[in-house]
Amino acid sequence: MDPAVPSPALGPGAEFDLIRAIARALGGAAGPLADDCALIPDGAATLALSTDVSVENVHFRRDWLEAHEIGWRAAAGALSDLAAEGAEAIGLLAAVTAPRSVAERDLVELMRGVGEAAAAAGGTVLGGDLSSAPLWSVTITVVGRAARPVTRAGARPGDGLWVTGTLGGARAALEAWLRGDQPDPDARTAFAHPIPRIAAGTWLAGHGATAMLDLSDGLAGDSRHLAAASGVQLTLQLDDLPVARAVAPEAERLRLAPAAFAAQGGEDYELLVALPSGFAGVDAEAFRRATGLGLTRIGTAGAGAGVRLILGGDDVALAGFDHFR
Amino acid sequence: MDPAVPSPALGPGAEFDLIRAIARALGGAAGPLADDCALIPDGAATLALSTDVSVENVHFRRDWLEAHEIGWRAAAGALSDLAAEGAEAIGLLAAVTAPRSVAERDLVELMRGVGEAAAAAGGTVLGGDLSSAPLWSVTITVVGRAARPVTRAGARPGDGLWVTGTLGGARAALEAWLRGDQPDPDARTAFAHPIPRIAAGTWLAGHGATAMLDLSDGLAGDSRHLAAASGVQLTLQLDDLPVARAVAPEAERLRLAPAAFAAQGGEDYELLVALPSGFAGVDAEAFRRATGLGLTRIGTAGAGAGVRLILGGDDVALAGFDHFR
Repeated sequence: MDPAVPSPALGPGAEFDLIRAIARALGGAAGPLADDCALIPDGAATLALSTDVSVENVHFRRDWLEAHEIGWRAAAGALSDLAAEGAEAIGLLAAVTAPRSVAERDLVELMRGVGEAAAAAGGTVLGGDLSSAPLWSVTITVVGRAARPVTRAGARPGDGLWVTGTLGGARAALEAWLRGDQPDPDARTAFAHPIPRIAAGTWLAGHGATAMLDLSDGLAGDSRHLAAASGVQLTLQLDDLPVARAVAPEAERLRLAPAAFAAQGGEDYELLVALPSGFAGVDAEAFRRATGLGLTRIGTAGAGAGVRLILGGDDVALAGFDHFR
Repeated sequence: MDPAVPSPALGPGAEFDLIRAIARALGGAAGPLADDCALIPDGAATLALSTDVSVENVHFRRDWLEAHEIGWRAAAGALSDLAAEGAEAIGLLAAVTAPRSVAERDLVELMRGVGEAAAAAGGTVLGGDLSSAPLWSVTITVVGRAARPVTRAGARPGDGLWVTGTLGGARAALEAWLRGDQPDPDARTAFAHPIPRIAAGTWLAGHGATAMLDLSDGLAGDSRHLAAASGVQLTLQLDDLPVARAVAPEAERLRLAPAAFAAQGGEDYELLVALPSGFAGVDAEAFRRATGLGLTRIGTAGAGAGVRLILGGDDVALAGFDHFR
């Protein structure tokens, strides 16, 4: 243990306490471990790498998704980390486990989904590994290159906070499945076929983004990582959240405000980005023309620490998803 | 499916048939998928990447190994792919699953083992991911850089085939555990604490190696991949195999010749390397002085295909390990 090694600047939660404990044990053998990607200087550019594991019955159920959707979704979730860094995709490696009894067709279909996600992001399947195991899992490691990587650490007081696309769609599908219903088709697509925001991430990196991350565990939890890494307080107006159309009926069933439902919904893989105060609606319009995506201002960075979530004028407390809570 | 995409040049086996089927489905979205590492041109050098999954009760048992040994072994097995490419290690990413009930101490110890293996190879832990799952698994993705990568594809007729270190030690431990005994201490170390042959790999790459791979599934099976990739026939004299000291009693229990036992023993992580015919005993002595490791000539490449295994003057048939047999 090396007391000179700084603790990763992550938000609160048992999973992140564990990462801090691991970083302490690793000492000098650890990189920073607190961003969407590991960054390796590479001539004038920077290599970005990230690894993401998807486990049957934790991240997906086989009766909810087709094999190629399991592959697409696992790959898209990992590619999203490149988007959050402002990186372009070179490719990915896929380590897959499945029972010995698996049909070859299912594994081939899963890898077809992985390959389609890689190709859609401008990359290829560079390599992989296969093993038998009692259950399905897919671990995707992505490799990309960034001209100007955007970490979680650069937001300054006065910056605006913006999100791409709409939030809550993936959770709307999840809640429908969990109670035994078929999800709304748009919600199902949001869950099964998320689009990594690679083009959006490179556009934002090129237009002054000071900090960025992707919303894999939900805005309520993930925003705390950006605040911790940047050393700022974020004030987010949940009333301004761009909520996916399918959220309203699902939120109503749970007696939640749609914005609160969406702010706690993981796996939308949209980007939360800090942009200088001068970035305005006209710039968001240019972003929409370039990427086909909405970009919505939802708050401001200020001096302090942590995240204030404001709903209907009041502070609300919402937790993020935690694997080891 | 793109008929212009060549099938990966791998040896026989159900697992490798599956990889061929996946490569066909991926078409243009797939890289070559037939080497120890994916290779990405990077200025004057080449980046090398590989991913390796270790699953509880498939690759290890928790009652055989301490948590830090599980971590070391998973990382060392993946780093061994860099060694096989003649690459130096930059670092690795670790995706770990464990039950929600896991003790934080066990996960921290596992990652300490991962970090020690990374540091011993000259790299760092660049990043990772954690997820709950019903069982433990560790997926390690390694990143390295090679001045002159050595693939499996360059062996020419007339080249000599050599192996580093000794073989069969890891299997000797495995066989003892499987019958409920404690393994010989040296055999246990070979299984629990393999050393990735990074320094050996770069030395061999710098001394004319024409093809190389690491023996993860055993010489009998892995040698077929080198033969297939290089388009040569390998003739291996098993009587010349450098057999680990702990093999003899274990082979005797199974009524196997020690060399046959060792040739089918996986997870030794030694290197099989093709070297020009001029490479001789004096060069092997220089290798030993540089690396502290033995280097033993065990055969010759010739025209043709496949692998001939010769034991006591006779051809013998031995299979490699196959996850989906």
